[in-house]
Amino acid sequence: MKPLQPLDEEKVFKDPVHNYIHVQDRLIWTLINTPEFQRLRRIRQLGTSYLTFHGAEHSRFSHSLGVYEITRRIISQFERSGYEDWPSEERMVALCAALLHDLGHGPFSHSIEEAFEMNHEEWTCRILLEDTEIHRVLEEVESGFSEKVAAVIRKDYEKAVVVNLVSSPLDADRMDYLLRDAYFTGVNYGTIDMDRIIRVLRPHNGRVVVKESGMHAIEDYLMSRYQMYWQVYFHPVTRSSDIVLRHIFQRAKELFNSGYNFTFLPHPLPALFRNELNVKEYLLLDEALVQTTFMQWTLEKDEILADVCTRFMERRLYKYVETELIDLDMIDQIRHEFEAAGLHPQYDLEIDFPTDLPYDVFRPGDPKKEKQILLLDRQNKVQEISEVSDIVRSISGIHRGRYHLYFPQEKLERVKHKLSPHVADIFEDKLGPAQMEFEI
Amino acid sequence: MKPLQPLDEEKVFKDPVHNYIHVQDRLIWTLINTPEFQRLRRIRQLGTSYLTFHGAEHSRFSHSLGVYEITRRIISQFERSGYEDWPSEERMVALCAALLHDLGHGPFSHSIEEAFEMNHEEWTCRILLEDTEIHRVLEEVESGFSEKVAAVIRKDYEKAVVVNLVSSPLDADRMDYLLRDAYFTGVNYGTIDMDRIIRVLRPHNGRVVVKESGMHAIEDYLMSRYQMYWQVYFHPVTRSSDIVLRHIFQRAKELFNSGYNFTFLPHPLPALFRNELNVKEYLLLDEALVQTTFMQWTLEKDEILADVCTRFMERRLYKYVETELIDLDMIDQIRHEFEAAGLHPQYDLEIDFPTDLPYDVFRPGDPKKEKQILLLDRQNKVQEISEVSDIVRSISGIHRGRYHLYFPQEKLERVKHKLSPHVADIFEDKLGPAQMEFEI
Amino acid sequence: MKPLQPLDEEKVFKDPVHNYIHVQDRLIWTLINTPEFQRLRRIRQLGTSYLTFHGAEHSRFSHSLGVYEITRRIISQFERSGYEDWPSEERMVALCAALLHDLGHGPFSHSIEEAFEMNHEEWTCRILLEDTEIHRVLEEVESGFSEKVAAVIRKDYEKAVVVNLVSSPLDADRMDYLLRDAYFTGVNYGTIDMDRIIRVLRPHNGRVVVKESGMHAIEDYLMSRYQMYWQVYFHPVTRSSDIVLRHIFQRAKELFNSGYNFTFLPHPLPALFRNELNVKEYLLLDEALVQTTFMQWTLEKDEILADVCTRFMERRLYKYVETELIDLDMIDQIRHEFEAAGLHPQYDLEIDFPTDLPYDVFRPGDPKKEKQILLLDRQNKVQEISEVSDIVRSISGIHRGRYHLYFPQEKLERVKHKLSPHVADIFEDKLGPAQMEFEI
Amino acid sequence: MKPLQPLDEEKVFKDPVHNYIHVQDRLIWTLINTPEFQRLRRIRQLGTSYLTFHGAEHSRFSHSLGVYEITRRIISQFERSGYEDWPSEERMVALCAALLHDLGHGPFSHSIEEAFEMNHEEWTCRILLEDTEIHRVLEEVESGFSEKVAAVIRKDYEKAVVVNLVSSPLDADRMDYLLRDAYFTGVNYGTIDMDRIIRVLRPHNGRVVVKESGMHAIEDYLMSRYQMYWQVYFHPVTRSSDIVLRHIFQRAKELFNSGYNFTFLPHPLPALFRNELNVKEYLLLDEALVQTTFMQWTLEKDEILADVCTRFMERRLYKYVETELIDLDMIDQIRHEFEAAGLHPQYDLEIDFPTDLPYDVFRPGDPKKEKQILLLDRQNKVQEISEVSDIVRSISGIHRGRYHLYFPQEKLERVKHKLSPHVADIFEDKLGPAQMEFEI
Repeated sequence: MKPLQPLDEEKVFKDPVHNYIHVQDRLIWTLINTPEFQRLRRIRQLGTSYLTFHGAEHSRFSHSLGVYEITRRIISQFERSGYEDWPSEERMVALCAALLHDLGHGPFSHSIEEAFEMNHEEWTCRILLEDTEIHRVLEEVESGFSEKVAAVIRKDYEKAVVVNLVSSPLDADRMDYLLRDAYFTGVNYGTIDMDRIIRVLRPHNGRVVVKESGMHAIEDYLMSRYQMYWQVYFHPVTRSSDIVLRHIFQRAKELFNSGYNFTFLPHPLPALFRNELNVKEYLLLDEALVQTTFMQWTLEKDEILADVCTRFMERRLYKYVETELIDLDMIDQIRHEFEAAGLHPQYDLEIDFPTDLPYDVFRPGDPKKEKQILLLDRQNKVQEISEVSDIVRSISGIHRGRYHLYFPQEKLERVKHKLSPHVADIFEDKLGPAQMEFEI
Repeated sequence: MKPLQPLDEEKVFKDPVHNYIHVQDRLIWTLINTPEFQRLRRIRQLGTSYLTFHGAEHSRFSHSLGVYEITRRIISQFERSGYEDWPSEERMVALCAALLHDLGHGPFSHSIEEAFEMNHEEWTCRILLEDTEIHRVLEEVESGFSEKVAAVIRKDYEKAVVVNLVSSPLDADRMDYLLRDAYFTGVNYGTIDMDRIIRVLRPHNGRVVVKESGMHAIEDYLMSRYQMYWQVYFHPVTRSSDIVLRHIFQRAKELFNSGYNFTFLPHPLPALFRNELNVKEYLLLDEALVQTTFMQWTLEKDEILADVCTRFMERRLYKYVETELIDLDMIDQIRHEFEAAGLHPQYDLEIDFPTDLPYDVFRPGDPKKEKQILLLDRQNKVQEISEVSDIVRSISGIHRGRYHLYFPQEKLERVKHKLSPHVADIFEDKLGPAQMEFEI
Repeated sequence: MKPLQPLDEEKVFKDPVHNYIHVQDRLIWTLINTPEFQRLRRIRQLGTSYLTFHGAEHSRFSHSLGVYEITRRIISQFERSGYEDWPSEERMVALCAALLHDLGHGPFSHSIEEAFEMNHEEWTCRILLEDTEIHRVLEEVESGFSEKVAAVIRKDYEKAVVVNLVSSPLDADRMDYLLRDAYFTGVNYGTIDMDRIIRVLRPHNGRVVVKESGMHAIEDYLMSRYQMYWQVYFHPVTRSSDIVLRHIFQRAKELFNSGYNFTFLPHPLPALFRNELNVKEYLLLDEALVQTTFMQWTLEKDEILADVCTRFMERRLYKYVETELIDLDMIDQIRHEFEAAGLHPQYDLEIDFPTDLPYDVFRPGDPKKEKQILLLDRQNKVQEISEVSDIVRSISGIHRGRYHLYFPQEKLERVKHKLSPHVADIFEDKLGPAQMEFEI
Repeated sequence: MKPLQPLDEEKVFKDPVHNYIHVQDRLIWTLINTPEFQRLRRIRQLGTSYLTFHGAEHSRFSHSLGVYEITRRIISQFERSGYEDWPSEERMVALCAALLHDLGHGPFSHSIEEAFEMNHEEWTCRILLEDTEIHRVLEEVESGFSEKVAAVIRKDYEKAVVVNLVSSPLDADRMDYLLRDAYFTGVNYGTIDMDRIIRVLRPHNGRVVVKESGMHAIEDYLMSRYQMYWQVYFHPVTRSSDIVLRHIFQRAKELFNSGYNFTFLPHPLPALFRNELNVKEYLLLDEALVQTTFMQWTLEKDEILADVCTRFMERRLYKYVETELIDLDMIDQIRHEFEAAGLHPQYDLEIDFPTDLPYDVFRPGDPKKEKQILLLDRQNKVQEISEVSDIVRSISGIHRGRYHLYFPQEKLERVKHKLSPHVADIFEDKLGPAQMEFEI
């Protein structure tokens, strides 16, 4: 096999978002067929969002193909236009990095990373560089090729424009997930004019910038992103699922560390709990394994673990109330009263502040240059978009922060009379049906 | 809880196919939130089709909501139009049967049913009637209510029009899966004019018939179905996945029966192998469990089991050739030569004839009355559609049957020189890249 | 005929935006079939926008059916929900007002109104109240019914909630045109979640207000509107067409008033020029007549009239430059230099400031109560949306105003050397191809 | 101007069907901006269909851009794939022929051609070859270039593959109109997988053939076409409009020939009636002129002309009944009885047989080679599609022919009692509301 040869015949994947994913290179085809890449079929793109939006069952496999396809279209546009700032010999490095950038995601990625202090980017690089099928395929291109791809993902590749193409506020990753998440959830906020955006991108001085006349399309893209964050990614029901999930991981770790004897703990979970996973073991982790484990744990004798697992598997999530302002003293008091009333001070109350979430909303004017969107005018001058666009400036200042308190409603109901009137009021006031409606 | 009360406020689910699923009845809301119904989130609607169409990761949970919603709209149309042949007191029985009709599906339903001689309809009825949360909720409506719903599903409910509404060649089930499967695979063959079809349905003498002026919409629906069958449901790559899957179940059963010592065999798989599952155990079966088991079995010491599991998890499926005519003698000879060449006569060759598949394409003129589509003319006479529509008559006679031989290509390549020229030719002739291209 | 009877059978129109328009009432069916309503087929919904977006050839006929359909769905939701603040006996008045609200639009409505100081709302009322087929049909319902409909359109009907339903910042008119204009132009900025919006509307104290939980859908609606304004309705190419059009009307009026002998001036144009149109004559005005007249005028001997007519018919529009700030003195100077250089000081230069346009962008906090969008919380308190939504507050302050100077490029090119350097620079600086590109 | 130079920067048109129309060549841009091409904005793509499907107001201008764009994409795919049978020097001839193929269409094309024995293809060639702006632009490419384009349109260009690309059962013209007509009418029968079809086309021996593996996509395309013919193009309401239209032309011609003194007969209608139009005059004909004329003729003193014009402008069309079999004698008798009863034997009755219509449904097995769709297998052999596809064979034999009798219902009602029972029955039997419902 000579991996850089084109395929005898272009192959396609039917894709609901991009219609067809086109594969012209034998290398890309071979990478898609590795076990490490196929594993992404068993990791959902949106984690627990399917518990809020039942259509959101799509996988990182689909998303990764989409990111590859958009990157392919952008590069193809660069080549057709003959832009000099695009180093054409970097095409394959860029395509591989686009395709493989999510390789290291674990099951329910954000929650598991938080619980076990892992980082999916590091794992992506380990899978690229250690003893895997992917590694072997990449090294057949040329010795050191896998390191090039890893460098792009670590953002320290020497050709800055490749890094910027693969990772920037306007990259193929973000474009694909907006379109794909909108498609599968069924919300229409993520509709962006991708064709137009691709047409106005252009490589310039080690950056991918935007031709000035495309500003409106970018404004529209940022507004779509804004809407998707607040209406899908930060949806309180999804947050509630994430909290239940984190409680499961937290409780299981506590139990494991205290020598608890699990009735079900398949390979490689012990290594996960000991923080000693090697690459082979890491690749065994997927959402099928995690869900199967949770399902078996619904029968564990530890009541807390069984409870949170049952909640997750049967979608009996925590309810929530919104509150304007709450200080640390008040939180202490609530936890204290909860405990006194027989509730668990940690597992029965979680305080969440949406803007602490690990998502990156676009912040115009970010001093980090790689987080800026730059416009290129006819005189070849670049300007950061928020200097030019009122709408971008406007939406950037908005903070919607309100605290959300999550709790198991039926437990709270049982002991509410034991709480002080002030604390009870925080919860009770809002217990009307409309507030509690988990409407989407 | 009074289950027949309406909700204080209508609730909705955001759905990519129907935009919103509307829930107005407390009973429906409660049923959706039972563990038995939530389990359907872990059963894919299209089984292994996601290995062919990567978007097809949608669950039977989504589909069941969709079937409920279409049924709700049809009944609402019946009520608005004041049709006398619709027994309005049956609304809730019909809605429950629509929502719950797929409750008994197991993981990779068609394959597991074949391997273990199970029947999802029977399981649906057991879940409705035995000791489950669903059963309790239904019985709260009135004693015997669960039996009514089961009767509709078994097609022996006394009100024939309810049975026909829930199960007929034009039912909500088929309408939802055409639209939903088209949406998630990304193919556009399944687009039907559902609003129009709903408008022309009408209850009549214990049947749901079609107002004559809607004939074109029905023709279009049947053509869409025809296309979806050949291009999605019978896709050879999906067939290949199904065969690998069946080989796994078959091999595992053989091993279990011969007393093989599995390194991983979680509850309730032993009971499954012994054909002794009770309802509680059956409900533990889902695709997460099956996939996790297969993943662990990739490391089993039985080579055949490990091989087929690895093929499934890494999507290294069997290739296939198409052949016009092949008789039993020839099949015997092939198996014989395979064995002589060191291949396995069963696991390394599978012969498939598409029209044997367990799907039900519409056959106009079917003598079974419940499989007919009837048109109602202005004089209130009914006619079977194929008597009126040339196009329906035309597509009905079509058989595309060609035998497909499935086999592990890389193994065959190694021993091809040992086969007789005639047998080798059957496989070799078509081993060109275009034939083998797993293009979609 | 008894106009208030329902039809024997519901009738439908196939509509690309709403799928089907449902007509259940004989009165609505009869109104649609009047000559006055059919005339709306010959008035484009978006005036000259088809010269910018070639798909935008849809008529006010389509739009009016759409507004009717949305209103029908809103009222049907009110009735299903049994809201007490909705006076159900007003259904037919509201539907008629919705269907007929655009009846008085003339050809290229905004431009012709400006040129001849007409008002389409007044004409709508005259068509409802004077001797027309529509008037007769309405009066058959009951004597004085046409006056009721006219009162709704004039916004002085006694039932305030009916007026508010038909005309408010969230009315069916705006919803239909956003969706329809987005569909026919092909831009995707106008996609709004209409089903959701309809679900959260509710009559309350003489107003149609929004249930608080629907705030995000309204934010999205307002952002869509914002985008449509800037990218479609205020598109500079459309502005250029409007200016050419106004120049035609202006020149023709000048000529008519000076006794010029037109070679083509069909009935009822003389009456239009004399401002003496009666209703019968007004109804003869449509865009076919106007375009035919312009086509014939391309051969008129008056050079200015022939020139602007040819420009319009052959789409050879004025080019434009954008300029930050310009004062009256500067404008005087430009006109002066133009004249000295042999250009026409009026017909060869037009100064346009987008926010002067006769469109009504939503202005939150507008003191006029009927221009407010009100949210209704669970305690039945109403709040103006900008008090609650940061995003609404943010986009409302934005002014994109820059002056646009429109001019015939090829004429200017010929005499540019005669202009002072400063004035020439205003035009020349921007004459590069990118600026002049009439890209959409 | 050097017309074959590329543009400095690609220009785009926003198109609802293809998203963007891309223009890279200065020649194409210049052609689009000629008055002859801009005239196509005033000719509807679907003639009178807007009276049935109110969204179908799209013009031949839009369609022509679409045909150009699809052709551009096909050629671009040919060039990318490096197919040797494609003569790359013919790109511009092919693009011009695709863009300009509908140039000669008159207002309400099919009806006017029938009434005045004109042929739009001939007029297209005259506009290309005589003294027009288009002609001048084409000749600037090279002397004789306009003749090349005309030859492609006449189908006698020496490079057969160019002719076949522009005109065949699978050409860009048909693909665009299926998609576009489906989009604007709102019916979903025309959805085809254009991307897939383009991918499987390939030039071969002077033909554009289809790679065998694309057969299903072609089947789907032909089924879509079949549905569009019967449900849109042959819709009886559209037929009714066409008949009224033909009656107008017919009556006006009769009157003109008999020396009738029209109160309104603008240039160039006299030349049209005398069959003496030159190219300049022909180009003045558009649907605005025709509609304006009809509107003025609603006031003509000739009652028949005034009646049919009023019918057309106010959409008071003829009703129709369907009848199985009717022979010439019976038709004579009906006309005779009509006349005796005071109806007009020609203008008050029209007999229509749908398959006589001037549309070309695909007929597989057509001996004319250019009407065949050919499949190319892996051995480079071609086969006509109906030899391979059962479904294509099936739908091809279908004739839905029933006679439709069109007549002015209200007139007939008045005299029905004067008709013989047998004749009255033909009409009366079907006068129930459902039959007469002009439902779409």
